[in-house]
Amino acid sequence: MRALLTDLYELTMAAGYAAAGKAGEVATFELFVRRLPPNRNYLIAAGLAQAVDYLLNVRFQPEDLDYLRSLPQFALAPPAFWDLLRNFRFTGDLWAVPEGTPVFAGEPLLTVRAPIVEAQIPETYLLSMVSFQTMIASKAARVVEAAGGRSVVEFGTRRAHSPEAGVLAARAAYIGGCSGTSNVESGRRFGIPVLGTAAHSWVQSFESELESFRRLRDLLGAGTVYLVDTYDAIEGTRRAASLGKPLWGVRLDSGNLAELSRAARRILDDAGLSDAKIMVSGDLNEYKILELVAAGLPIDAMGVGTDLAASSDSPTLGAVYKLAQIDARFTAKFSPDKHTYPGAKQIFRFPGHDMVTCHWECPCDKEPVPAPLLRPVILRGELVESLPTADEARIRAKRALAQLPASVRGLYDQDHPYRVEYSAELTKLYEDLRARATR
Amino acid sequence: MRALLTDLYELTMAAGYAAAGKAGEVATFELFVRRLPPNRNYLIAAGLAQAVDYLLNVRFQPEDLDYLRSLPQFALAPPAFWDLLRNFRFTGDLWAVPEGTPVFAGEPLLTVRAPIVEAQIPETYLLSMVSFQTMIASKAARVVEAAGGRSVVEFGTRRAHSPEAGVLAARAAYIGGCSGTSNVESGRRFGIPVLGTAAHSWVQSFESELESFRRLRDLLGAGTVYLVDTYDAIEGTRRAASLGKPLWGVRLDSGNLAELSRAARRILDDAGLSDAKIMVSGDLNEYKILELVAAGLPIDAMGVGTDLAASSDSPTLGAVYKLAQIDARFTAKFSPDKHTYPGAKQIFRFPGHDMVTCHWECPCDKEPVPAPLLRPVILRGELVESLPTADEARIRAKRALAQLPASVRGLYDQDHPYRVEYSAELTKLYEDLRARATR
Repeated sequence: MRALLTDLYELTMAAGYAAAGKAGEVATFELFVRRLPPNRNYLIAAGLAQAVDYLLNVRFQPEDLDYLRSLPQFALAPPAFWDLLRNFRFTGDLWAVPEGTPVFAGEPLLTVRAPIVEAQIPETYLLSMVSFQTMIASKAARVVEAAGGRSVVEFGTRRAHSPEAGVLAARAAYIGGCSGTSNVESGRRFGIPVLGTAAHSWVQSFESELESFRRLRDLLGAGTVYLVDTYDAIEGTRRAASLGKPLWGVRLDSGNLAELSRAARRILDDAGLSDAKIMVSGDLNEYKILELVAAGLPIDAMGVGTDLAASSDSPTLGAVYKLAQIDARFTAKFSPDKHTYPGAKQIFRFPGHDMVTCHWECPCDKEPVPAPLLRPVILRGELVESLPTADEARIRAKRALAQLPASVRGLYDQDHPYRVEYSAELTKLYEDLRARATR
Repeated sequence: MRALLTDLYELTMAAGYAAAGKAGEVATFELFVRRLPPNRNYLIAAGLAQAVDYLLNVRFQPEDLDYLRSLPQFALAPPAFWDLLRNFRFTGDLWAVPEGTPVFAGEPLLTVRAPIVEAQIPETYLLSMVSFQTMIASKAARVVEAAGGRSVVEFGTRRAHSPEAGVLAARAAYIGGCSGTSNVESGRRFGIPVLGTAAHSWVQSFESELESFRRLRDLLGAGTVYLVDTYDAIEGTRRAASLGKPLWGVRLDSGNLAELSRAARRILDDAGLSDAKIMVSGDLNEYKILELVAAGLPIDAMGVGTDLAASSDSPTLGAVYKLAQIDARFTAKFSPDKHTYPGAKQIFRFPGHDMVTCHWECPCDKEPVPAPLLRPVILRGELVESLPTADEARIRAKRALAQLPASVRGLYDQDHPYRVEYSAELTKLYEDLRARATR
């Protein structure tokens, strides 16, 4: 079914290309973010695994074709169009930045080079999948940075934009640095640690809070996290402490977390449970976490839901998918705030700045030349590189973030954003093209 | 697979209920929104069809059980738990407000009454599915209201939170009043009109804009919408106009829409194309549309993408799923800003205000008594009401919105929000319960 997960105009254009005898022209599209969203100084590339899966497996089913034939837009579509859809598969090339790589505005996250119809139809799917996961991975990296070494668990599926979005958000959040997720399907599908113990309704379903705690410990032993604020967080913590070991700790989900975490710490310590941990949750985000951490509170772990799974302070990424070349002809846009550079590109990351070059170019005046960020993933329709697991992407993100200037990892917009230069050759190509276009 | 689309704690609680011999206790949960988001004066219920599909079909597959057995959290889970999952199906009741119904804070969108394990496991899925679609339908209703009778097309899949979220957003936006969507799969799956013609890359892929326009018209005839701003919107409109009939019209996707729409109108009229329409798009939302409409511009239709598909100004809905009763015992929460009322409820819509009552109650001091909003959809695990199509839900929303006070349909927070009362009997039940709890 997935081939219909696209915008109609991708298909009307495909019909038009077929009618114009252009379906075989080779197009190069690049997916990138024009401008970083507010308070974002970097992005963490994510979603590539699903993009690759799509490109390798996208097909039109007979019922898809029946549906399209019923639409007035295809009344005049030529037979070549229907043949094309019936036999549709992606036979082109995909170059991409590995998941977990920090990227910046203007840098292609992926480059698709294929017969124009094969490159055009995937636009909608690729944009949605890659920009969503990249947005969430980037948000997670911020939250994890704010938590300063404390464990952050992603809890947001119930507020994600559909259950499937929750599965993908959990994956992306893990790549961005979270320790795990509450989403079971994401755990199963992507090998992500899953966490969670009980809700307020668990406590309410028993006649007494103490009984609910006892029952939970019977099940979870040393993994028990008591949710203590159903009735009164202090009383709840005392009841939890009264049960002694084993336990992992307590979770505070409401109220004044500063006061409550300090009080809970004292209660646990007084009960000889100094190893017991304190987790907090409830409408947290990187800004609130930074405050909690700065206050030096006895908090060991955080659960973050809504704001992470929907990237609430910046819920979309303005990713675009732009034509850079068709057959031998470079294309670009010259409008002042929406210009695009022509031709396929490459990215080199030097200490402290990046350089975007023409795809064939080596920035050889700089030594030593780092490995280019965009790598071939699919060539002529075949996978040529094994994709990193979510775990590997998470490790990559952690290492790469540590190598960026500290200011880039800040939570707010920087006066001196990370520098992305365009090579002299790429700039000249753009200027030449513009001169010809306005001639 | 879908049974694992849940939070882990739903499953640890299920194991705990099985261990405590409580799995058969009958729980009543209600799904509602505590507070309306900023600038929202109503919500349009949506997502019920998918919620019902989930409840009727949710199952654990053998590989799901294998995965769960591998988790440390279930090391002590009793055999009864595994039996329960292996034979899991929803055997309870679902009452719900029909899709397309306006609802307000504190009003249950749905009520689930089932053995506690069957009612608990669906929590995450139901919350995500219903709150996402409700949020988008509500956003769409605002955008359509602002457009004042002009057609609004949903274009946002590429900015949706995953491709599947785009399919569901298109459905919800249609229920909220949009005329159609660009999302082909949503069109096929839900019978929603699909729209779209060509992107800037179409124009760029030809040597000249005029040729690209000619080719498009060859394909689409009277349905042709020329995207005129790839190079220069005025020139583009002139070129489109030079081709004469047939055409639907032109689309402006950037620049000063006020100036450009007026200029385009003149060009089309001067070419004898006064029937040709003007569509605008590009980062639109209800606030910008209201300005365009207020300026009396010659705009016939709008394409709305990012802001609609992600409800960008309010990207989450704080929906909750709260235990209201377990067996014969009512439950409630008494904390000042998060209190919940006990027991299953019903909603009656009187002219100008709603009344929330106990489920069994008839607000018979008011005459005539309107039909209650919550209706039985699933009883004892079986569907008892045929669900409305997206089309029917859209009609319901349109009619119901027209019957609300005009101020409620405003785009900004109102000084006098729509009134939702709680019946005397429900209030007494809550107070009695609180008195006993604090005794």
